[in-house]
Amino acid sequence: MGDYAEPIERLIDEFRRFPGIGAKGAQRMAYIVLRRSREDAERLRRAIADVKDKIRTCSRCNNFSDSDPCRYCSSPTRSPEVICVVEEPRDILAVEKTREYHGQYHVLHGALSPINGVGPADLMIGNLLERLREGVAKEIILATNPNVEGEATAIYLAKLLKPIGVRVSRIALGVPVGSDLEYADEMTMSKALEHRHEM
Amino acid sequence: MGDYAEPIERLIDEFRRFPGIGAKGAQRMAYIVLRRSREDAERLRRAIADVKDKIRTCSRCNNFSDSDPCRYCSSPTRSPEVICVVEEPRDILAVEKTREYHGQYHVLHGALSPINGVGPADLMIGNLLERLREGVAKEIILATNPNVEGEATAIYLAKLLKPIGVRVSRIALGVPVGSDLEYADEMTMSKALEHRHEM
Repeated sequence: MGDYAEPIERLIDEFRRFPGIGAKGAQRMAYIVLRRSREDAERLRRAIADVKDKIRTCSRCNNFSDSDPCRYCSSPTRSPEVICVVEEPRDILAVEKTREYHGQYHVLHGALSPINGVGPADLMIGNLLERLREGVAKEIILATNPNVEGEATAIYLAKLLKPIGVRVSRIALGVPVGSDLEYADEMTMSKALEHRHEM
Repeated sequence: MGDYAEPIERLIDEFRRFPGIGAKGAQRMAYIVLRRSREDAERLRRAIADVKDKIRTCSRCNNFSDSDPCRYCSSPTRSPEVICVVEEPRDILAVEKTREYHGQYHVLHGALSPINGVGPADLMIGNLLERLREGVAKEIILATNPNVEGEATAIYLAKLLKPIGVRVSRIALGVPVGSDLEYADEMTMSKALEHRHEM
């Protein structure tokens, strides 16, 4: 017999399947479900079902959305002349938090990673090209992550998109605001120097 | 409008209700549910339902169990003469891991905490007294946590149970095996000195 009764064991296993949740965390979560009311458990089950039932990807930008086109693609206040390209839907939130971007988005759902077998065909680039063919977008901002995969993806996309005649830009890599130069790693510091601008 | 589509927002909220899961963690989990197959989501929902449908507390020892009495209370190989008292069902696992305890258990489902308004009436002490009235148990091992609440609970139970004529013992508090004395806090070190034993 296992350490737990079978249904508990199974719920712990399900929680463990989330990256970042270890044995202890999954056990704690299962016990919380046990301890809480049946209504609480039903609300969690309903939320899981609804997310699978009601959320689709936007056919224009691939963002997770309960409408198609999504709120950003259909908003009359968002300029279709600028498209910010991100790796994941959650990255949109990071850009939105600035409250300074009023263009549209495009979600690649990944980044190039030859080591993990992720090539251009695995990214949502096809419908980005379709959008550009409409001739409305004038600038593409590449906001992929500032790591090896994100940089490789940005370089690939820049090469692919510039010949179309659209302006392609990359978000600045440099020292974070409020940080201490003393603790900046050499890669970041080197990018900060390389991309210095006149004042 | 919120940051996310409503069903996503709601699932993030549900995940956030687990202690120890913050905004970022809950967001990550919701996106994992979105990204995984519908079958994966259904399996998680099934596991939550089964844990609520099939798991009850054992009427003898209050452990979470899919049978009543639970596996420990009904096992012919576990001695009913010793009862190890713990705060939570998960604490049973910590004792079981030693593979050296072959008695039964009793789960209090909490510890005395006047600050949080938890008094003796909030703990599962009633059916412990009932078990002792059967006259089979000869020793009670108090394995509540080695903190203020656990100690207070152990002291309270010792005073309550000793007059019944049962032997009452407390797990040893001391320096952990494999640790370095240099890093032992003074409370632990003081307990380790106090509970020293002849060699």
